[in-house]
Amino acid sequence: MSLELVVLGAASATPTSNSYTTSQLLKMRDHFFLIDCGEGAQKQLRRSKTKFSRINHIFISHLHGDHFFGLVGLLSSFHLLGRTTPLTVYGPPKLKDIVLTQFRAAGTFTAYPISFVITQHKVPQVLVDTDSYTISTFPLKHRIATTGFLFKEKPLKRGLNKAKADELSIPICDYHWIKEGRDWTDDDGKVVLNEYITYAPPKPLSYAFASDTMYVPETAQYVKGVSLLYHESTFCEDKAERAKQTMHSTAKEAGRVAKQAKVDWLLIGHYSARYKDFSQFEVEAAEVFPKVYRAKELHRYKLTEQGIEVVSLRHTTEHEE
Amino acid sequence: MSLELVVLGAASATPTSNSYTTSQLLKMRDHFFLIDCGEGAQKQLRRSKTKFSRINHIFISHLHGDHFFGLVGLLSSFHLLGRTTPLTVYGPPKLKDIVLTQFRAAGTFTAYPISFVITQHKVPQVLVDTDSYTISTFPLKHRIATTGFLFKEKPLKRGLNKAKADELSIPICDYHWIKEGRDWTDDDGKVVLNEYITYAPPKPLSYAFASDTMYVPETAQYVKGVSLLYHESTFCEDKAERAKQTMHSTAKEAGRVAKQAKVDWLLIGHYSARYKDFSQFEVEAAEVFPKVYRAKELHRYKLTEQGIEVVSLRHTTEHEE
Repeated sequence: MSLELVVLGAASATPTSNSYTTSQLLKMRDHFFLIDCGEGAQKQLRRSKTKFSRINHIFISHLHGDHFFGLVGLLSSFHLLGRTTPLTVYGPPKLKDIVLTQFRAAGTFTAYPISFVITQHKVPQVLVDTDSYTISTFPLKHRIATTGFLFKEKPLKRGLNKAKADELSIPICDYHWIKEGRDWTDDDGKVVLNEYITYAPPKPLSYAFASDTMYVPETAQYVKGVSLLYHESTFCEDKAERAKQTMHSTAKEAGRVAKQAKVDWLLIGHYSARYKDFSQFEVEAAEVFPKVYRAKELHRYKLTEQGIEVVSLRHTTEHEE
Repeated sequence: MSLELVVLGAASATPTSNSYTTSQLLKMRDHFFLIDCGEGAQKQLRRSKTKFSRINHIFISHLHGDHFFGLVGLLSSFHLLGRTTPLTVYGPPKLKDIVLTQFRAAGTFTAYPISFVITQHKVPQVLVDTDSYTISTFPLKHRIATTGFLFKEKPLKRGLNKAKADELSIPICDYHWIKEGRDWTDDDGKVVLNEYITYAPPKPLSYAFASDTMYVPETAQYVKGVSLLYHESTFCEDKAERAKQTMHSTAKEAGRVAKQAKVDWLLIGHYSARYKDFSQFEVEAAEVFPKVYRAKELHRYKLTEQGIEVVSLRHTTEHEE
């Protein structure tokens, strides 16, 4: 069991010659979710060797360009590459119009159906609820309507301990109910407790994406106890005033939310281009919450029960540029 | 005197991990003109070390995404980087709405004024006419309304031959009229012909941009005798049928237009991603019109009276990726 996040873009405001604006790819229970889609996200997806066809859900947090200017290009490429599988896009009310106006102008419509699900930013909202996971929004506080996204695995069933089952000569026809959590009673009426003949399933993992937002204590309530919290940290403490003015957070504030929410791990990103070196962000966040990683573009953060494994995906692509 | 073109993107349809869709930067008489603006054009502009503030005119040929999906991001970056200088965008009727819808959704408007000049695609239209140059459209034939753009320098005045002027003791107060083309009469009434005391100015240069279009003989009329013609060549002859269906041109057809129009030089581009190696395009175009170059991304094509000088701009930026 694992949860993987690929950071496609970690810059704020405007891309530079060597950075991309916000976009992330989350892999959870073998499903791929694209979160935000800054300009050039499709290029980064290609570089990360992601199959476009695996993406069936795209989540847009808000309508500042650094979070969605790459969307129409990606949807267009899906079409040009022959996609027919339906796609669902979750985002603010005006997103549908923005996308469709551009398709209409081009005189082409996608050969695959797109459903737009409108997010509203005042209270949490469940967007997807399956047997395996839920995806919901939570409110953030920014200059325009902005939502965070919370991805939560549901607990798996307990696994049968085959060795114990053989030892007790449990007939195969009883396996189903045991996996559903029932105890087992043998022919003599002796009850064997479910825990004895099953394994505990891995702990369900969860991911919360909080960008863009100023520091608000409520965020911690919404993301309480998640395995991994991404919280924007546009500035360091030296520009705390600027963070307030623009309704962004500092690295320390991201750390504070992580601490209050008692999350397992914190990932920070959305760096202002005013900084040349981003290591200071990690230093300042760690002063408040030590279990922090800094989002690096084209890096994969794999969350396991043991911790986080970070792998660079750059080596496969650098020579191509 | 020179005219410079930087190819920012030369791919058609969709960007790949190592290619960008159509965008070009033309430098003419010390003015910078951006022609088309595929996704990521702003990144390529940065890599080419172009100062954003030098761009005051942007021309969009048509509303297929590979020619304008990078526009809103570029305009947004202009704003975020503090631009106040007015900008003019020339393009099809719906372009203004597409851009403004996105700015409205973000709740931000640019701190600099943008004028939208609407192009119409049925007959040529003069867009800009200064003492130094003219810029006009010409009709192309594609699946949706598409215009080419024609950039023409106006002839400069003849330059004073200072040595001859000194030899004849021409008073400085007469220089002005001589540069305007008048002959000079000395105190004895002897007339000195203007050609004797002036230099011929360099030949005015011109650039025509023809993308996207199927082959039509009329194009040659519109671009007659230009110094440099860019003509799309999406396919080679092996896919001539596909070219027809999609209303694009083959490399040979681009060569045919160049030959018919008797241009000085031809530049081809807008390659289909169905090809891995683009040298075949150049080979096929050259069979019809030998003075051809193939558009390469982040390469500068400098047109002088002697010929074309091609310089790669990649070396300065590759390490940054």
